[in-house]
Amino acid sequence: MATLPLISDQQASAEVLAVFDDIRAVRGRDFINNFWRALANDPALLSATWERLKEVMGPGELDPLVKEMLYIAVSVTNGCEYCIHSHTAAANAKGMTLAQHAELMSVIGMAMQTNGLATAMQVPVDEAFKV
Amino acid sequence: MATLPLISDQQASAEVLAVFDDIRAVRGRDFINNFWRALANDPALLSATWERLKEVMGPGELDPLVKEMLYIAVSVTNGCEYCIHSHTAAANAKGMTLAQHAELMSVIGMAMQTNGLATAMQVPVDEAFKV
Amino acid sequence: MATLPLISDQQASAEVLAVFDDIRAVRGRDFINNFWRALANDPALLSATWERLKEVMGPGELDPLVKEMLYIAVSVTNGCEYCIHSHTAAANAKGMTLAQHAELMSVIGMAMQTNGLATAMQVPVDEAFKV
Amino acid sequence: MATLPLISDQQASAEVLAVFDDIRAVRGRDFINNFWRALANDPALLSATWERLKEVMGPGELDPLVKEMLYIAVSVTNGCEYCIHSHTAAANAKGMTLAQHAELMSVIGMAMQTNGLATAMQVPVDEAFKV
Amino acid sequence: MATLPLISDQQASAEVLAVFDDIRAVRGRDFINNFWRALANDPALLSATWERLKEVMGPGELDPLVKEMLYIAVSVTNGCEYCIHSHTAAANAKGMTLAQHAELMSVIGMAMQTNGLATAMQVPVDEAFKV
Amino acid sequence: MATLPLISDQQASAEVLAVFDDIRAVRGRDFINNFWRALANDPALLSATWERLKEVMGPGELDPLVKEMLYIAVSVTNGCEYCIHSHTAAANAKGMTLAQHAELMSVIGMAMQTNGLATAMQVPVDEAFKV
Repeated sequence: MATLPLISDQQASAEVLAVFDDIRAVRGRDFINNFWRALANDPALLSATWERLKEVMGPGELDPLVKEMLYIAVSVTNGCEYCIHSHTAAANAKGMTLAQHAELMSVIGMAMQTNGLATAMQVPVDEAFKV
Repeated sequence: MATLPLISDQQASAEVLAVFDDIRAVRGRDFINNFWRALANDPALLSATWERLKEVMGPGELDPLVKEMLYIAVSVTNGCEYCIHSHTAAANAKGMTLAQHAELMSVIGMAMQTNGLATAMQVPVDEAFKV
Repeated sequence: MATLPLISDQQASAEVLAVFDDIRAVRGRDFINNFWRALANDPALLSATWERLKEVMGPGELDPLVKEMLYIAVSVTNGCEYCIHSHTAAANAKGMTLAQHAELMSVIGMAMQTNGLATAMQVPVDEAFKV
Repeated sequence: MATLPLISDQQASAEVLAVFDDIRAVRGRDFINNFWRALANDPALLSATWERLKEVMGPGELDPLVKEMLYIAVSVTNGCEYCIHSHTAAANAKGMTLAQHAELMSVIGMAMQTNGLATAMQVPVDEAFKV
Repeated sequence: MATLPLISDQQASAEVLAVFDDIRAVRGRDFINNFWRALANDPALLSATWERLKEVMGPGELDPLVKEMLYIAVSVTNGCEYCIHSHTAAANAKGMTLAQHAELMSVIGMAMQTNGLATAMQVPVDEAFKV
Repeated sequence: MATLPLISDQQASAEVLAVFDDIRAVRGRDFINNFWRALANDPALLSATWERLKEVMGPGELDPLVKEMLYIAVSVTNGCEYCIHSHTAAANAKGMTLAQHAELMSVIGMAMQTNGLATAMQVPVDEAFKV
């Protein structure tokens, strides 16, 4: 249950439809997921978010699958249910194997654990780590 | 300022020194960072944490540098200052380029933003994302 | 599904009913939302929480709608589903426009993003910001 | 101690200086705070972040001081030290009174508390709150 | 809806079944909760997590019920719905009274509140607290 | 560096001094830690916070040391540096042994890890856990 209505294609303004069209073109499929339909309540926010996401998650220095896994890592730590599902689906679509997913889980679990320990003990940063 | 003393080699028990020795052997250098010296107040916790970390961060399905970047992503989201510094140093040591670091920053920033938006709007998970 | 039963008016003790009555009087309607019915398992916690909330969210230095939006901002960052829904409903009841809601979303998204970036880069606080 | 060098005006590329100039023009003062000097390691990220921030925090539906307070609320919940300092300074510069700051503290404290309670008891969202 | 299938006894490998058997033996009942069935997609992660949990939550310096309450405190702060439910059930099974649960709620709520206040005001750590 | 001045006894109003006196009387020592001196910028918030803390952390259903450890668990998860230091000092003053502290660390680390795993896999809550 969203706090805002999900905007269907029929309800969408021309400005919103233009963004939906670009999402469809970039992704090569018709499906528009709920995140964009919720953002569509504010065409300016929808457009700014999509333009930036397209740039950040597009071709770059890191492998597209790696970027999805980084997205999952942040989303898990923030506890964002929607984001965990959508980016796990995206990672699967980009070829994440079960073994890679398992290792991703292990790294996230390990990082959570040592984050807790380092914070609990308030370990001072080593001089050697300073730039 | 840690909430526990940092255990020097001189203060370390044989059990602790054995772990320190293994850290040195695996990493191929003499330096033991403060996290392990703080954990050394509890030899059992030190040993269990190191054994597991060694396994999770060792050779596997994902590139070692990717695993460090995932670690950074979780640590940033948790706000663990020590962990951000230590794993950024580790990623640098494993060859992370400035351009890769910049893209890592961009992905983390993007994920934080859309996590906030998806949570704020309580976007329902699309049926299409369900396994 | 709560971890505790939700206390109905019929199940409520006199002490709990007195708090429910005050909630009804202050809000000018009969509806008691689930948060208070869960807290009612501990009359002392119910009473202390309501008394403080009434004071903090009552007339003061900031506009009541602004206070609801601040509440939403904290709740989103903590990922508290219940709180996001209840305070978005409260903000709507206090006259939040769609345009204000959209701007609230934009500010939260922006803050999440720069929080992530500032933390990831461990930016030192400028001297100029120190009181 | 940042994980990246802070870029001085002397070290800045023309692309970075153009953003610095715009920050100076919009804010009407010469001072560039460390956040932008750290981001300047990646001119594209610097530019995208500044352009979006300028839009989101510029004139709109909500009072500029309210937007700074919302920023503080998110930053506190995320525990972003840099952001708390920089946006408290910004709120002070925009005329936040001590009494308003005190009320902001009270609302944040209250929201944190009831976020914890609602989450701990897993209170189900009331039907009445659903859009 | 999990992002991975839940592994039934029928689907489980011998390695997974051995862990399930140990969980059953240690807990003295047949029921295997979903957390372990999800982890069973990666037998190595399942085994490592169970072995460590068994040790940490087993007999030690702190009362078993206290350990469950600590687990709840962390899980609430992280907003982990599954963990809040499973460890509240575990605490109930270990004899947590309603009055103890109520006090646990009060302490969590108080800690959340003062965490927010101390962070918002960026209170410097007293010299007296330093080890 | 606080975002607000720390109020000395000399600067304190009669209302603030009355709270300081009560803190001294309840704790049986002269020392007033910085948290209260920062809160003293708003006498009403100071008073409300102290009155509630005194009640929650005073005699009740749970052992005073257990309550300090719960406070540490929440504070670590929120990453509140001040709170970790002040409540670790309080736990030490209430007799926490090194072995108990070590076990507290282990439980926090374990909970962080399984919180991450359960959230990452979006494990559905077992029917058996529902009240």
